[in-house]
Amino acid sequence: MRIALLGGTGDIGEGLALRWGLYSEHDLVIGSRSADKARTRAGEYDEAIANRGGDASITGAPNEEAAAGADIVVLSVPPEYVAVTVETVGDVLQSDSIVVSPAVSMSKDETGFHYVQPDDAESVTAVAASATPDDVATVGAFHNVSADRLANLDADLDIDTLVVADSRDAATTVAELADEIPGMNAVHAGPLENAPEIEGITPLLINVARYTQEMHHVGVSFD
Amino acid sequence: MRIALLGGTGDIGEGLALRWGLYSEHDLVIGSRSADKARTRAGEYDEAIANRGGDASITGAPNEEAAAGADIVVLSVPPEYVAVTVETVGDVLQSDSIVVSPAVSMSKDETGFHYVQPDDAESVTAVAASATPDDVATVGAFHNVSADRLANLDADLDIDTLVVADSRDAATTVAELADEIPGMNAVHAGPLENAPEIEGITPLLINVARYTQEMHHVGVSFD
Repeated sequence: MRIALLGGTGDIGEGLALRWGLYSEHDLVIGSRSADKARTRAGEYDEAIANRGGDASITGAPNEEAAAGADIVVLSVPPEYVAVTVETVGDVLQSDSIVVSPAVSMSKDETGFHYVQPDDAESVTAVAASATPDDVATVGAFHNVSADRLANLDADLDIDTLVVADSRDAATTVAELADEIPGMNAVHAGPLENAPEIEGITPLLINVARYTQEMHHVGVSFD
Repeated sequence: MRIALLGGTGDIGEGLALRWGLYSEHDLVIGSRSADKARTRAGEYDEAIANRGGDASITGAPNEEAAAGADIVVLSVPPEYVAVTVETVGDVLQSDSIVVSPAVSMSKDETGFHYVQPDDAESVTAVAASATPDDVATVGAFHNVSADRLANLDADLDIDTLVVADSRDAATTVAELADEIPGMNAVHAGPLENAPEIEGITPLLINVARYTQEMHHVGVSFD
């Protein structure tokens, strides 16, 4: 499968690239607004994977080029860039492409991090879905995965990731991709309308890491 | 410690009474608006505990009487009764009493359950804190514990419960009480302001149970 990680030069995209690069056979392409930055980071990921005995040949490209022909397009960008990023690549998405939204909108004050609902939608996942062409499925996933933990190949994961989508087939495809990462387990949580409570877990995990001393880069499991 | 479970004739109060009755030495009293119902349920809990080889003598009383002299007052009532229940017992609370709020406000539609913020507060826990006398600590805990799973003594728990409070001492006291229940592990999540994201997990757990077939009475763990 061809997976485009838009904004994949950092954050959750880095960890997904490293882990899928090391543990799967998918064709990975890093997208960025800067083609140079995308190519540089792709080379760095290849090297990190090679250092672990893996063999990946991740490519880098501008976002639109990365998304063209991709089966999976992950929006690994800050929440305020989700809509514009999807819109930039909207014309090159195929009807069987799947857009994946992992972003979460948060604020911070002296008490901790807090979930912030976007102005015109119930969740950032819903923002992504609104900006995505109607014939392309949107899936919410990877919201509660610590980017640092995911990008640290020395760290065991042992975490669940909640998956929401209006298309059960699309949800299943993304869940299978998540399950290919050792220590990550996909859990279905229904339609996109259930994204707000999932996104809200992310600030909570940061608060737990702050207030529970032995916990860092916290993940969540359901059982 | 004397623990009053107001509204303890059902829901989360039943499970807490059964588990603390079986696994701790605390003095438990079930509160209800109906003294008869409270006493009947207390007797039923004693019997269920005795059937497991435990020995508890749980009492039942009207809410106000149950709360009088209690170190811990758990508001095991539906969210819309939280404020009035605390107000009913406000006069008998001691300055070293701790009020514990486990309630969550939810709505349901065809897509699943959704978190509903109370009209005049960020969370039900905040509603409880507002209604509690200023010199009495409020702690949010047990929000994400399935009442059915907790009340089923055949069910292993293996779950975390998030604890929020403005008083770290009060949070620690309630965390220790949670930790006395086998399979339950308290996790600190900071001040009361962090309650909304915790309460939001409860509808999510119901959605996960609905959309992930092998999961029922889902709990959450952080690591």
